[in-house]
Amino acid sequence: MTEDITNLKIGVIGAGAWGTAFSMHLVRKGYKVLLWVFERELYEILKRDRINRYYLEGFSLPEQIGFTDNLSELTDYSNDIVIATPSFSLQETVEKVSRSILNKNILLLTKGFETKSLLRMSEVVEKCHGKKNARIAVLSGPSFAKEVAMGAFTSVVVASKRSELASYFQKHIHNDNFRIYTSKDIVGVELGGAMKNVMAIGAGIIEGLALGTNTQAAFITRALAEIKRLGKALGAKETTFMGLSGIGDLMLTSYGQLSRNRMFGVELSKGKKPQDIIKSQNTVVEGYYTIEAAYRFSKTLNIEMPITEALYKVVFEGKQLLTSINDIKNRALKEEDI
Amino acid sequence: MTEDITNLKIGVIGAGAWGTAFSMHLVRKGYKVLLWVFERELYEILKRDRINRYYLEGFSLPEQIGFTDNLSELTDYSNDIVIATPSFSLQETVEKVSRSILNKNILLLTKGFETKSLLRMSEVVEKCHGKKNARIAVLSGPSFAKEVAMGAFTSVVVASKRSELASYFQKHIHNDNFRIYTSKDIVGVELGGAMKNVMAIGAGIIEGLALGTNTQAAFITRALAEIKRLGKALGAKETTFMGLSGIGDLMLTSYGQLSRNRMFGVELSKGKKPQDIIKSQNTVVEGYYTIEAAYRFSKTLNIEMPITEALYKVVFEGKQLLTSINDIKNRALKEEDI
Repeated sequence: MTEDITNLKIGVIGAGAWGTAFSMHLVRKGYKVLLWVFERELYEILKRDRINRYYLEGFSLPEQIGFTDNLSELTDYSNDIVIATPSFSLQETVEKVSRSILNKNILLLTKGFETKSLLRMSEVVEKCHGKKNARIAVLSGPSFAKEVAMGAFTSVVVASKRSELASYFQKHIHNDNFRIYTSKDIVGVELGGAMKNVMAIGAGIIEGLALGTNTQAAFITRALAEIKRLGKALGAKETTFMGLSGIGDLMLTSYGQLSRNRMFGVELSKGKKPQDIIKSQNTVVEGYYTIEAAYRFSKTLNIEMPITEALYKVVFEGKQLLTSINDIKNRALKEEDI
Repeated sequence: MTEDITNLKIGVIGAGAWGTAFSMHLVRKGYKVLLWVFERELYEILKRDRINRYYLEGFSLPEQIGFTDNLSELTDYSNDIVIATPSFSLQETVEKVSRSILNKNILLLTKGFETKSLLRMSEVVEKCHGKKNARIAVLSGPSFAKEVAMGAFTSVVVASKRSELASYFQKHIHNDNFRIYTSKDIVGVELGGAMKNVMAIGAGIIEGLALGTNTQAAFITRALAEIKRLGKALGAKETTFMGLSGIGDLMLTSYGQLSRNRMFGVELSKGKKPQDIIKSQNTVVEGYYTIEAAYRFSKTLNIEMPITEALYKVVFEGKQLLTSINDIKNRALKEEDI
């Protein structure tokens, strides 16, 4: 690995809100970016207007960002690849390019689980590679795309089993308004990023029902304890969940006005049907897809996850919201298990 | 200790917002409450109107709450005493009644440090008692007084070195809308409650300056890491800070519209002088008093507490806000140390 990113060029796979905002950040850091766009129409719009009218309105993208709809062009472009697809399309996308990104440095922004296999996103990439030793780092932490696009101060974690790769991305991607901490706990960092989308749906429900801020804070705290229990079972480091990719991102997503997962919860609280809300949304509600994976983890590993279970039953089995909330409130009194 | 609280009577020392709201909760649980009021005028108002016009407007207090301005009357009233004075007057108040509460069950709601001695609030009570073995439990967690007064669902921790005392209060004070977890880590629980008031001032500054929600979440996460470092040095259990009295209360106070400490920070961000803000406030800004204690802890114990130090310098030494923020943002890149 050379110390400098090749020719200050970097390829970004996925022109959602996050991939687009992250590309803008990379340009501020001095890179030329090639952004791969999945949707044919969006690709045409981006080439014509330099505005991501699908996912990140209001920003005129700088000329240092080029666009392509050709994955091979992207993988030829740079030794450093950022992946920012939705979780449900990660596997399909990576399979198409797995051979050509085999020895590249991959920075993964996608959060979630592959629903069938319950693999984390970095594991999906590894599987496509056919080797456990891919050069993969994940980036996670409290980072609404819109605020990163605006250049607001943001702080995240980059984790990798290869600590030199985490340090490499830390050095080359940080700037004064984008502070990066490194971590060796890729399991914990990915898990926090995935599970916060589930829990934010619950936070949206509590907000929608106007249960109050005491309830909200208690909910998020107990949600954190639940994520931590799952993390422990999967081999994550406990304290990672106290960090930016754990409670940091969980808070942002649960309290933040810009969170799609939280909004999904708010809509649920009004009695709308989950499927109808999903259909009406332009953007991806990652938490919706992650609930099922998290629920299956809790069953397979026999971990007590009352919030996840309640959300699963509300979203996928039509259980009444208020019944679910009362079931959670009335659990036996106990010692705080954190 | 009998299993039932004596005659379902309980004395509450301190008619601030929290002492008053907590009394209302106790009445819902079936108690008769005697509430000791410090201010002569407020005492008269409460007797006449049954409304706490100083600290908790909008609630008509039920007739099961009696009022007194006589501490001896209060200590004769019950074997169970709740203490909810401001931190700066705890010692003076307890000294007056130390002998008569020697063998009572004390539930302490006051949060902070005694500024001169750096003692935690439970240590102040112990010191007045002249013995280390007093029957003291502390209650902490995300609990805005107003929401508890309204009966909104709230979840807190009761901690005591005597676990049977924590269980006693858990059993006798919980109800369907006031869930109590127990803990043995009185140091961690008290520390979280005290330090969150400091950090909420920082959160108020960030909000006042409109730095964005990514910044806010990063700030609160790093504030938690800082509190945890202090806690570790003082013998607290690390995971306590992931709980209701740690991150739970920190979130509530940092994000909540009802937080006086947060409001103090918002006012600071507008360039107002700390002393002027304090003078203009009717209620106590606990964090203002706790900053100094926390800063002295960091110096005495040699713990890295950049946020506390920055707040100390802004509030007590007139350092420029933006300079302080830049100093924190531009610290060396590192591994996430949580």
